[in-house]
Amino acid sequence: MYIPTFDDVRTAHERIKPWVHRTPVFTSTTFNNWTGADLFFKCENFQKAGAFKSRGATNAVFGLSEDEAARGVATHSSGNHALCLSRAAGCRGIKCTVIMPETAPKAKMDAVRGYGGEVITCKPSTKAREEALNAFVEKTGANFVHPYNDHRVIAGQGTCSLEMLEDIGELDMVVAPIGGGGMISGTALTCSTIAPNTKVIAAEPKNADDAYRSFKAGHIIEDDAPNTIADGLKVSLRPLTWHFVSNYVHDILLAEEDEIVSAMRLTWERMKIVIEASCAVPLATIFKNPDIFRGKRVGVILTGGNVDLDKLPWMAKQ
Amino acid sequence: MYIPTFDDVRTAHERIKPWVHRTPVFTSTTFNNWTGADLFFKCENFQKAGAFKSRGATNAVFGLSEDEAARGVATHSSGNHALCLSRAAGCRGIKCTVIMPETAPKAKMDAVRGYGGEVITCKPSTKAREEALNAFVEKTGANFVHPYNDHRVIAGQGTCSLEMLEDIGELDMVVAPIGGGGMISGTALTCSTIAPNTKVIAAEPKNADDAYRSFKAGHIIEDDAPNTIADGLKVSLRPLTWHFVSNYVHDILLAEEDEIVSAMRLTWERMKIVIEASCAVPLATIFKNPDIFRGKRVGVILTGGNVDLDKLPWMAKQ
Repeated sequence: MYIPTFDDVRTAHERIKPWVHRTPVFTSTTFNNWTGADLFFKCENFQKAGAFKSRGATNAVFGLSEDEAARGVATHSSGNHALCLSRAAGCRGIKCTVIMPETAPKAKMDAVRGYGGEVITCKPSTKAREEALNAFVEKTGANFVHPYNDHRVIAGQGTCSLEMLEDIGELDMVVAPIGGGGMISGTALTCSTIAPNTKVIAAEPKNADDAYRSFKAGHIIEDDAPNTIADGLKVSLRPLTWHFVSNYVHDILLAEEDEIVSAMRLTWERMKIVIEASCAVPLATIFKNPDIFRGKRVGVILTGGNVDLDKLPWMAKQ
Repeated sequence: MYIPTFDDVRTAHERIKPWVHRTPVFTSTTFNNWTGADLFFKCENFQKAGAFKSRGATNAVFGLSEDEAARGVATHSSGNHALCLSRAAGCRGIKCTVIMPETAPKAKMDAVRGYGGEVITCKPSTKAREEALNAFVEKTGANFVHPYNDHRVIAGQGTCSLEMLEDIGELDMVVAPIGGGGMISGTALTCSTIAPNTKVIAAEPKNADDAYRSFKAGHIIEDDAPNTIADGLKVSLRPLTWHFVSNYVHDILLAEEDEIVSAMRLTWERMKIVIEASCAVPLATIFKNPDIFRGKRVGVILTGGNVDLDKLPWMAKQ
């Protein structure tokens, strides 16, 4: 298992620069007043394909040799990684194949195809997904880009906090959501190297608290099909992300479903930006734990903005 | 009738700088690809109180003498001007009173009060509103800040295109919505002075096309209670805004209701920003008239982002 270093983050940053946005950092007087903290929101919802995952996916795709690239890339994902890998492959002009459960929303499949990716469906189980992926990789020699347990992906995600620290200077803490742990691992890698006094805090839905329980237990605990509105955060830690979480993450904070929906809605209402539910978990934990954040300079990674505008969570509640 | 000059815009810009945002200019690769134009979106949805009207209102409030300020400001509005004037008055620490029809949504009244403004309700007619306002002004000596037919307000709105031209250089055209004409007048004032080759184009809902008809007829035609989703654009031109519209506006383009809703939704979906329906009218007219905009550098003023998230127009259609 190769553990990426901060040199890999620097290399990734140069490599992906022509293909992804250097996203802006927003502030909100209202949220600062409410929390007593100085909050800095890194707007990866404005990132290409609508999510930070363009960073890691683009780093993986553009790091391939010509020979590797000629055989294309493949992954399993029904979320933002699938979109972002398809887009990155399209930028390089190579093939991308995504294994998706046949139960995945048609809109997600169409979105992957819209970026030029190919979709192969499988039965909706982990076993079926892995078998389908392995069979495809064996047949075609495609390069498998895991959504998070991949050193190229983690190095790519680490460019996000690198930009934030460059743009706004020292921070007392950075808060990012945790699902499989790709973003938090990249954040931990960058902060532990160039900002060792910046605490890295992960935010997780209470309903999918496997990372929290792993963190407390000292070993990976996998969750079985958690149910949360933050659908990007349902997956579990893997060895590479566990390395960073167990060694460099300061704490994991939890938020309830209604707190997540409320933070999401308030962000739309006050900051006038569209963020997805997974992306609202950090702010929900900040509202919930004012004592931790008051008086601090806090970086908040807004991870993505891909939302089904026909199905907004506060609508469902009426 | 005092016609504001570009010097007034410069003065306004210095005056309001400490109190309003210099908003960012966004671009969208997707929209550029669709239209063949280079579109530059000036994001006044991120402006203080969520709308460009903070510019004009702040200019009026901070331009008052101490004596005038001591008597407070007043206006009639049930829209963004009411919010923005209340906020500006709060920044200076003076009183703001807003005359609103008793039928106005409670949320709007609460929002004005939230910024420290006072609400006086009246019967829902133009006559009742004017009588209530005049009576209040006579009694208190408050300074009346009209939502748009006011040289201080127009000079303030003119700072928006000033910033855009400073930040992104020459433009072939600028498109802004037209209701009462405050923003388009400020835009025309600025462009005609410092960018005389930049065409100023107004965008109006077909369902509230009184400015369009006035423009074609050569005199002000008032509309009687038009019905449009773009509720910020229902009001009619007045002498001061007519001066700018009739002399400096290149053309007025119209959009249907469904085209406005579609442009609004696409902006949320693709640009990940929250804009209100009135704000989507320029983009709707650009999509509708590709031949006018193809190959051009086009500034688009995104006027505001104050939306009731419980009542989204595409939801109503289901």
